[in-house]
Amino acid sequence: MANLVFYYGAMNSGKTTGLLQDAYNLEERNLKVAVLKPEIDTKGERKIVSRLGISREVDHLLKKTEHPLQLVKENYLECKRLYVDEAQFLEPFQVEEFSDIAHRLQIQVYCYGLRTDFLTHGFPGSIRLLELADRLEELETICPCGEKARFVARFINHKMQTEGNQVLIDQKEGVSYLSLCAKCYQNAKEEDPKTLKLIQKSLYPTQK
Amino acid sequence: MANLVFYYGAMNSGKTTGLLQDAYNLEERNLKVAVLKPEIDTKGERKIVSRLGISREVDHLLKKTEHPLQLVKENYLECKRLYVDEAQFLEPFQVEEFSDIAHRLQIQVYCYGLRTDFLTHGFPGSIRLLELADRLEELETICPCGEKARFVARFINHKMQTEGNQVLIDQKEGVSYLSLCAKCYQNAKEEDPKTLKLIQKSLYPTQK
Amino acid sequence: MANLVFYYGAMNSGKTTGLLQDAYNLEERNLKVAVLKPEIDTKGERKIVSRLGISREVDHLLKKTEHPLQLVKENYLECKRLYVDEAQFLEPFQVEEFSDIAHRLQIQVYCYGLRTDFLTHGFPGSIRLLELADRLEELETICPCGEKARFVARFINHKMQTEGNQVLIDQKEGVSYLSLCAKCYQNAKEEDPKTLKLIQKSLYPTQK
Amino acid sequence: MANLVFYYGAMNSGKTTGLLQDAYNLEERNLKVAVLKPEIDTKGERKIVSRLGISREVDHLLKKTEHPLQLVKENYLECKRLYVDEAQFLEPFQVEEFSDIAHRLQIQVYCYGLRTDFLTHGFPGSIRLLELADRLEELETICPCGEKARFVARFINHKMQTEGNQVLIDQKEGVSYLSLCAKCYQNAKEEDPKTLKLIQKSLYPTQK
Repeated sequence: MANLVFYYGAMNSGKTTGLLQDAYNLEERNLKVAVLKPEIDTKGERKIVSRLGISREVDHLLKKTEHPLQLVKENYLECKRLYVDEAQFLEPFQVEEFSDIAHRLQIQVYCYGLRTDFLTHGFPGSIRLLELADRLEELETICPCGEKARFVARFINHKMQTEGNQVLIDQKEGVSYLSLCAKCYQNAKEEDPKTLKLIQKSLYPTQK
Repeated sequence: MANLVFYYGAMNSGKTTGLLQDAYNLEERNLKVAVLKPEIDTKGERKIVSRLGISREVDHLLKKTEHPLQLVKENYLECKRLYVDEAQFLEPFQVEEFSDIAHRLQIQVYCYGLRTDFLTHGFPGSIRLLELADRLEELETICPCGEKARFVARFINHKMQTEGNQVLIDQKEGVSYLSLCAKCYQNAKEEDPKTLKLIQKSLYPTQK
Repeated sequence: MANLVFYYGAMNSGKTTGLLQDAYNLEERNLKVAVLKPEIDTKGERKIVSRLGISREVDHLLKKTEHPLQLVKENYLECKRLYVDEAQFLEPFQVEEFSDIAHRLQIQVYCYGLRTDFLTHGFPGSIRLLELADRLEELETICPCGEKARFVARFINHKMQTEGNQVLIDQKEGVSYLSLCAKCYQNAKEEDPKTLKLIQKSLYPTQK
Repeated sequence: MANLVFYYGAMNSGKTTGLLQDAYNLEERNLKVAVLKPEIDTKGERKIVSRLGISREVDHLLKKTEHPLQLVKENYLECKRLYVDEAQFLEPFQVEEFSDIAHRLQIQVYCYGLRTDFLTHGFPGSIRLLELADRLEELETICPCGEKARFVARFINHKMQTEGNQVLIDQKEGVSYLSLCAKCYQNAKEEDPKTLKLIQKSLYPTQK
């Protein structure tokens, strides 16, 4: 039985590496796969790039209004597995169609994406995945304090943000993201000096 | 490190049995626990009852406007673990406070609840838990077809409902719930006769 | 695809409750199941009993030389799921046949048992399950110190044992078992007074 | 609380990529790590290499008689996390010491290795890890038939082996390994022609 899996994590948890490794495993066994990505994410355009230095061209950029079920029926029926990178940017109706693709077309769908935004709330796509996915798998990453990181904090010019648009790509000047554990996230919001210092050192390692 | 865990499942996945077993394990080792429940759930009132026939009095019924952090500081600081049954009925701010209780007071919090309602959408409490919990653990149950069940369908007088209030306790006359796999849920919505027959047999076994 | 699952845990992790709840879930949906148990375990004879007070008659006591594949072909082909309680006492060849039952007869097999003995070594049955099971699922329990328990310690007349037969049922006079975390297990072996005191209090709560 | 984790999988499940990604995540946060490898594995010598093309020098090759506890106390006390690649080749006493390192020195230990050999039996190191690890995490890979692969089959000059030494590095001429699901592994042993053909195509793709 094929199903829909959501590999979720904070920033820098190795989501793209996980996707690329799994796609590699299947292709090595002569099994066809396709890699999709919502168009909203302009980072790297048609390429998905892992911080480890490996990359791959996506097979299709999915528009906000595009129907995955139709797309797959027309182009990817012979695939054993479909991958969606940056899946938090999917529209809810697209997540529903990926669930249909798994259960009706019997094609395995692996979605990789962020669980929550910089204010700890889900993206529309990730909420629908958390509701519908047959399996939820966490990809772990680490807080500068050494604990498991859960949350993503946004910084603009060294300052943690507590409001703003949900989507803001980190290639904008001065914008950075950092994954934090629940405790450091809370401490940073309350401007605890020790936590802020740890964060600065982690975000801007070359500065004094 | 204490953390916040969400044990989620469909109807009849053994959530209450899981809670009762875990609480038993701790008390057997002389460790204090407390069991809370949102007041909205009137089934059994102050009692939580497992279908296997075991039950337990809750320690506290949590009002919609009540602050868990305050409550725990005043009453349950010596507890090793807190349990919340029917956690889908928590208010989002209460989930946030349970996360604080775990990370600031270092008391483990185990929330047991439904992932989604009868229309496959999260309850406000379960969405906040899916966003914030340090660990998401699925409790499995089974569809009448034999597959793993993910979704909950609501029936009134033998008819599957596709609209209605999110909350409707199954002690109302004629109201029943049944956990279904993604495929049977979809088939039932489309009134596939074979699926409907399987469901009727499962819901109303004594009828011809 | 049916498969072989090993639910492993230390003593008092709720293995039997888990088995009974899952069997209940299936029977409630009119799906047939069977519960087996290796004959070596004489505790309760044909009954499996959970510490929560629920129990069930086993369908078959499996002899040391009996072939599960043959047994299932002759008696349980219409079952959707088979359960084995105290699965650590299975013979390795029997575990191999349960794997065949899952993959060749397409009947789901859930084995519940101890991971390791009182000296931290696997039983022949649990080692074969750890090697062959399609899914390994831990059932957690707790150490008197409050940490997750991993190991099982044997006590005879209040004294922790560091040698002895692998199998010794705890209904023998003076024999008790206690699940401990890695640290307390090691401390107890080294006769750390604080740990021994905690253990005594947990094992013999009514004594001064 | 630090603990000992065993990431197990069949051949080509991405174990080394997982290790390299996790080590990268920590170093990016300025946290120290060390990568160890049992000396018996001569593939790549001091380098661990992922099939995706990324690699890293190991910090230490562990001899069969070397004591990890001593080694870590003398060299790696400031590390936040230790990694062991090819952990199936550890000696059982070394696994026990890695458990001590986690619980006594509070350094997280992540072991990556094969669960079983080409005859479905554990290596001494992997059996001890399956017995002692605080967490067992599976890394999945795929069978040429499209199912999840569990077992590793050894081939010499196109022929599946049913006996031989447990360790035989696949750089020996004519030796190959292939990960198979339980069903294909069994079928291949029984020389089912369809399965053998699928395997040949997967192992030697360029041949007619």
